[in-house]
Amino acid sequence: MKKIGNQTLKLDNPPTILDTASIVGPKESEGPLAKFFDKCLDDEFWGEKSWEKAETKIFRETINTLLAKSGLSAKDIDYSFAGDLLNQCISSNFGMRDLNIPFFGLFGACSTFVESLCIGSVFMDSLACNNVLCATSSHFCSAEKQFRFPLELGNQRTPTSQWTVTGSGAAILSKKGLGPYITYITPGAIVDMGIKDANNMGAAMAPAALSTLCTHFEDTGRTPDYYDAIITGDLGYLGKSILIDLAKGKNYDISENYDDCGVLMFDKRKQDTHSGGSGCACIATVFSGYLYKLMKQGHINKLLLMATGALMNSTTSQQGESIPGIAHAISIEMEKK
Amino acid sequence: MKKIGNQTLKLDNPPTILDTASIVGPKESEGPLAKFFDKCLDDEFWGEKSWEKAETKIFRETINTLLAKSGLSAKDIDYSFAGDLLNQCISSNFGMRDLNIPFFGLFGACSTFVESLCIGSVFMDSLACNNVLCATSSHFCSAEKQFRFPLELGNQRTPTSQWTVTGSGAAILSKKGLGPYITYITPGAIVDMGIKDANNMGAAMAPAALSTLCTHFEDTGRTPDYYDAIITGDLGYLGKSILIDLAKGKNYDISENYDDCGVLMFDKRKQDTHSGGSGCACIATVFSGYLYKLMKQGHINKLLLMATGALMNSTTSQQGESIPGIAHAISIEMEKK
Repeated sequence: MKKIGNQTLKLDNPPTILDTASIVGPKESEGPLAKFFDKCLDDEFWGEKSWEKAETKIFRETINTLLAKSGLSAKDIDYSFAGDLLNQCISSNFGMRDLNIPFFGLFGACSTFVESLCIGSVFMDSLACNNVLCATSSHFCSAEKQFRFPLELGNQRTPTSQWTVTGSGAAILSKKGLGPYITYITPGAIVDMGIKDANNMGAAMAPAALSTLCTHFEDTGRTPDYYDAIITGDLGYLGKSILIDLAKGKNYDISENYDDCGVLMFDKRKQDTHSGGSGCACIATVFSGYLYKLMKQGHINKLLLMATGALMNSTTSQQGESIPGIAHAISIEMEKK
Repeated sequence: MKKIGNQTLKLDNPPTILDTASIVGPKESEGPLAKFFDKCLDDEFWGEKSWEKAETKIFRETINTLLAKSGLSAKDIDYSFAGDLLNQCISSNFGMRDLNIPFFGLFGACSTFVESLCIGSVFMDSLACNNVLCATSSHFCSAEKQFRFPLELGNQRTPTSQWTVTGSGAAILSKKGLGPYITYITPGAIVDMGIKDANNMGAAMAPAALSTLCTHFEDTGRTPDYYDAIITGDLGYLGKSILIDLAKGKNYDISENYDDCGVLMFDKRKQDTHSGGSGCACIATVFSGYLYKLMKQGHINKLLLMATGALMNSTTSQQGESIPGIAHAISIEMEKK
């Protein structure tokens, strides 16, 4: 691979995204993308005794589904890269513990899925690996319990709040295969514009998204119209409109071909999800379930996938800290240049 | 790079560890390695209002110290890789937020420092990067508060418990320089032998350490006597003796040249630290402050550095889960083969 511009790596040997898998919870199963997911759950527990154990099971079964779909066994996977929102990333750690695959734990909040694809691509580019696994999960109930209020309180949610997606998405990057290929990665730096409202993540993350978006265009010489689709996850309705405005200020018009996984996941009018979906699983499931299939079917040939994360915890909010954001972008294309 | 054996990558272009930096807290400043660290703090707060903010400051100032020592600026660093023990890795996230360096957040509990060196080495091996930054931190007070009991309670500690190191260690991997070089990486898989005692991390992590150690020897064809020193972090006194015994059972005698950063950090007789040091900062500071200098001075030419992590949180313990462990190993050598 080669470094181009300030932050972007152009892969010499773009890996194929060999296959993907996704499992989602009950709320997501009532949304507009339900038919694209491998499995839709009826309840948030899936037979487990806690939300944390349920999230671990969702993670594990998504990996098992992916291995079954791809025809690979755990032994065929050289390295794995995964993370989640729970303290000390327990869903991915416990979800991976029986697989005996060398494992790198990641934390980038909701940016983790694309972070895992970035690092996985760099491992693949060397041609030293045959297959690597990238995955993330999140769970509405375990996230609310950990980051906000006990669900039993029934707190009213603010209009700017987002709904953490219950689910897991996973992808295998492979030396073999005919695309879609990961061709460029633009990892982002942390951007903190001083937003302190933990119920307005879209506003906190939009400046990081803008930074990585502009850097990607400057580094590659591409413009927004190069891509069939530019997809972020998860700025939600509010963050999406902020990013469109901020990009316009930098002379990039993304209003025609841009959307956000938090917006795509739920039907805002019917599902009471306010500013849209969020969580590590949002972009992971929307990409793995929906966007990947659109690419394989020829509806999208050039995709810029950018995941955003809010790098805070409940202690930092209580201590008056602002919310740093980060965004990582990758080009996924049906042809490798 | 090339994959050799089951899990190991042999680097084609071993990066030099250009420089390191370390800052430690007051307890570590009274230990046998105090004179090797760049800065020893008098108290756990360092002028901040909370332990979390103090840990963030320690992290940030370690990076600043490292940049100053190496003569590089933040702009010279292509990518950074860091993590810590706090929920959502806030110390590293907040510690990195003003530097504007593309950032990958990692979580591998106490294995994170070597995890960051593994991933950093793979980025460097491509020759696409000039310099990458690897760092971790931990803080006794913030860790106790988060994982165990309020310090104000004054709970008695069990004999098997370890003392989380307050500090931060960081290293720059560079294309230029004359070593020490990272020549091989052996990332580990998660191993869970069913240990449930959160006050006996050494026992929980030793099987993972054994797995990665044996895999490294099998993959590379090396034996323990190839290395001048085999150093783990942080199994502590108990885990160290378990690993020696377990390795003997696999016909690897490491009793002559093996030690553990948790053992090296404190004076057990005088400092009341029970089974020794632990935390993301333990191996990070012992390597960055002590071992790196021994290598530069010619006292160690071939080092196998292996970091171990316990991948649990307080919720998993409360829910009766066992403690999965992980270990990542790297060969650091004064000559690249």
